[in-house]
Amino acid sequence: MDTKIDLADKFGQFSDHWAPRIVARYNDNEVRLAKAKGDFQWHSHADSDELFLIVSGSLTMEFRDHTEVLEAGQMIVVPKGVDHRPRALNGEVQMVIIDPADTANTGDHKTATKAVEI
Amino acid sequence: MDTKIDLADKFGQFSDHWAPRIVARYNDNEVRLAKAKGDFQWHSHADSDELFLIVSGSLTMEFRDHTEVLEAGQMIVVPKGVDHRPRALNGEVQMVIIDPADTANTGDHKTATKAVEI
Repeated sequence: MDTKIDLADKFGQFSDHWAPRIVARYNDNEVRLAKAKGDFQWHSHADSDELFLIVSGSLTMEFRDHTEVLEAGQMIVVPKGVDHRPRALNGEVQMVIIDPADTANTGDHKTATKAVEI
Repeated sequence: MDTKIDLADKFGQFSDHWAPRIVARYNDNEVRLAKAKGDFQWHSHADSDELFLIVSGSLTMEFRDHTEVLEAGQMIVVPKGVDHRPRALNGEVQMVIIDPADTANTGDHKTATKAVEI
């Protein structure tokens, strides 16, 4: 901690999609980076909000009752327990995601891609 | 919640320095935006880490034992209890800061500029 983290450098260290990397920890949360392309699955997180900040590309965030399209420099907080489906429909998206430590990216540890530290 | 937040739009809504605005809430945390110019004061946060992500400009973060210079797209987590002094020495800085709700930006509610919601 207390050393700077360069997001572009970290994004350069992996290329797979929907596979979060942990780049920092803030209290009991993980600051994760993910690359996205195509569709993720519908899911929710029963115990926590989830923060998304788009770094590049265009992320479509579907909710059951509406859809938000986020571009670079835009963020959203998905409330605890709310179904959502992130989709990258126009090329690759790079994004920062903040979750409590050990949150399953699919909302279910049985199907999750575990976030690993880089 | 569950609607997108445009950081550039929010930064356009205020112009004062070292006066945090709350643009989102994530669990018990506030996502704050701040503009910075010149020196802030030495301080620490006894009970929490503090996350900084630079959106534009160059932020010098001094610690007692080293200094980090952060540019746009770089972030740092200042650990709980660690003295730090943010400085914007080369023009204005725009940054995202995440703190637990009601954290005093100076580390002391008696001297803090209270974060207000926009």
